Amino acid sequence: MTDQRVVATYHLETSLPLAHAAEVLAGEQSTGTFVRVARESDQVRARFAAVVQDIQELPLGPEGPLPGTVGDPRTRRRARVRVSFPLDNFGPSIPNLLAAVAGNLFEIKELGAIKLTDLDLPPAFADRYAGPQFGVPGTRRLTSRAAGAMLGTIIKPSIGLTPDELAEVVDELAGAGLDFIKDDELQGNGPAAPLRERVRAVMPVLHRHADRTGVMPMYAFNITDDIDRLEANHDLVVAAGGTCVMVCVNMIGLSGLDHLRRRSQVPIHGHRAMFGAISRSAQLGIGFRAWQQLVRLCGADHLHTNGISNKFYESDAQVLDSIAAVREPLLGLTSMVPVLSSGQWGGLAHATYAATGTTDLLVLAGGGIHGHPDGASAGVASMRDAWESAAAGEDAQSALARSEPLRRATEIFGPVRE
Amino acid sequence: MTDQRVVATYHLETSLPLAHAAEVLAGEQSTGTFVRVARESDQVRARFAAVVQDIQELPLGPEGPLPGTVGDPRTRRRARVRVSFPLDNFGPSIPNLLAAVAGNLFEIKELGAIKLTDLDLPPAFADRYAGPQFGVPGTRRLTSRAAGAMLGTIIKPSIGLTPDELAEVVDELAGAGLDFIKDDELQGNGPAAPLRERVRAVMPVLHRHADRTGVMPMYAFNITDDIDRLEANHDLVVAAGGTCVMVCVNMIGLSGLDHLRRRSQVPIHGHRAMFGAISRSAQLGIGFRAWQQLVRLCGADHLHTNGISNKFYESDAQVLDSIAAVREPLLGLTSMVPVLSSGQWGGLAHATYAATGTTDLLVLAGGGIHGHPDGASAGVASMRDAWESAAAGEDAQSALARSEPLRRATEIFGPVRE
Repeated sequence: MTDQRVVATYHLETSLPLAHAAEVLAGEQSTGTFVRVARESDQVRARFAAVVQDIQELPLGPEGPLPGTVGDPRTRRRARVRVSFPLDNFGPSIPNLLAAVAGNLFEIKELGAIKLTDLDLPPAFADRYAGPQFGVPGTRRLTSRAAGAMLGTIIKPSIGLTPDELAEVVDELAGAGLDFIKDDELQGNGPAAPLRERVRAVMPVLHRHADRTGVMPMYAFNITDDIDRLEANHDLVVAAGGTCVMVCVNMIGLSGLDHLRRRSQVPIHGHRAMFGAISRSAQLGIGFRAWQQLVRLCGADHLHTNGISNKFYESDAQVLDSIAAVREPLLGLTSMVPVLSSGQWGGLAHATYAATGTTDLLVLAGGGIHGHPDGASAGVASMRDAWESAAAGEDAQSALARSEPLRRATEIFGPVRE
Repeated sequence: MTDQRVVATYHLETSLPLAHAAEVLAGEQSTGTFVRVARESDQVRARFAAVVQDIQELPLGPEGPLPGTVGDPRTRRRARVRVSFPLDNFGPSIPNLLAAVAGNLFEIKELGAIKLTDLDLPPAFADRYAGPQFGVPGTRRLTSRAAGAMLGTIIKPSIGLTPDELAEVVDELAGAGLDFIKDDELQGNGPAAPLRERVRAVMPVLHRHADRTGVMPMYAFNITDDIDRLEANHDLVVAAGGTCVMVCVNMIGLSGLDHLRRRSQVPIHGHRAMFGAISRSAQLGIGFRAWQQLVRLCGADHLHTNGISNKFYESDAQVLDSIAAVREPLLGLTSMVPVLSSGQWGGLAHATYAATGTTDLLVLAGGGIHGHPDGASAGVASMRDAWESAAAGEDAQSALARSEPLRRATEIFGPVRE
């Protein structure tokens, strides 16, 4: 028993008085039902009830209320509400935590918007969950990239390569000087390109490259699959000398990630595919700041945060907040490596460095490398030149003046971002 | 290798021409990236590309576009789009299927709304996944309720009872003639009421009841927890003679459910807490019809569908469609038992039966039983009377005329629904 509490932050909208709506949420998620029942004593309430800590009104956004919302939408108000839950209600178990802080509450019809935006977890969670095993230092060690941005790419086309073609692509990319190469999230373990055959095709190429140069790029094999296959998939990669496994966190679940982490001998590259389903709406779901804490507890070493000027819907402000979040202290756990991807190329290096102030980043470019007019090696060189220039404190124009590959990249990808 | 395909149905909105937006989605989720790359040959496209099957325009709803959407919102159009994916891209693996049909697509900024509403899966999925082990027949056998609606309740208060108090409540509920009793989804395995102690408190009560009456109510112990604890939690219940385990499907993940199913000896009661986070928005996420297929493949025997006149946001039409969905044929798998809960009481029996035409339902009333003016036994009697009357073809007024417990229930819960 403990008096530790979890504090959950929500953004909600309601036509009820704000304090009343917050109490409905707290009641639904702890001791309440729709009528008061026997044995729901004041003592039970005092010990187990979720407590509304504070309510801060916010301006309404442009969105209308969620379907099924009751009350007059014209009287709707928006607020940030913090609710604390006794840890004893669920213990430091992420699945059971979620039932309390993110369970039925999304269905409450008195709430016209309800999004879990942040969590403040007590230390007990870090006792139970292992957290990242490698993080930035382990990834730098395994990629031999002691300083500077870690640069990577995604195998393209995403799917459809034969093992022989895949080996050719990897050979080209390894030769281009990349620190990191990954399977696409669409490349799982299908009959057209089973994991076993990909490992068999890729690893000899990487070993040959390492023998030649002394450095082996980290290849993140996508081992996403049923829980009961994760360990065997991981072992296949490790037995072949692989140094990273990738999973789609939402596809195997947070608890599946924890299961893998307890067995993993290499860094876990966490892809966030399907995260948009719970997070893109401003009215509903779970925000990145809350979600990434659980991903970190469950042991991902790398986590996709998106990058600035990306091809997806997220604003630069959201992306930068996500990058900051995965690097912040959390219960003494190792930080995760933020993975910047989607529409990335060398011309974003200076703006990204200016906004984040760090090179402890894994920057992935797919089209930005494969689509460089002079090929993948020039694509990598354009990114390396740009990042080295940015980290040395130069401006983007100096980098352009010095780097032919970066200049050539601008012919396809447009002007550099200052 | 196979030529089987998965067909996914989406509701989307866009300011692009509809056909172009559908192609963006299909490209993003199969062979495409933001620039065409080497080796993305026409042959690769022909074999691996997702294909837009048909587009049916729909009227726009009241909702505005999702955040980050590009294009003029005034030119927005809405459509139902069906896209087919080669099974070979991912194989019959639910985690890898999800990366294709529900991965990054929620983040596409050309789409102002994007919801996966239905799936049409090939038979290979039923070869790989076990599906429900017990379903309706197994649940009827274990509860000795050969015909008529199966009636159940949730322990209330949800949390906060000591093991001794829990035993008292269960004794009262078992004596009241319930077929089914369940832990609340908030009652996991926390230090205030560990699963082990709940099993120790509850099972002797149920056994005594069975010795006396010949019938043991099914008690769904909430075993939700980390993947690595699920099997031990299950075994604890089974070793004590328990006949059901409950999990929050979204908390352990679909793949966690599959992991449990492969080890389970008793029906799995699937709670849908947190489903609202992916489904309440009309603009985003995954609809019940698509999701429940995956839950069924992964082996839940019971699945929460909500009930009519519920206290949450869902309309009766949505609820009835969900109840129909879990009972429909799916790849030869056993149907799931729809679990009707939230705001349920005897006065909804006639309307529910009229709309569903079946008693193969598990109807849960929390407040509707615990809150009956004459106690839980009268609460159960009011529901049993109402359901027997409805199934016999009577109208609600006849039931009211005959059943004192049902009449008394109306004093608290209002008039019966015809």
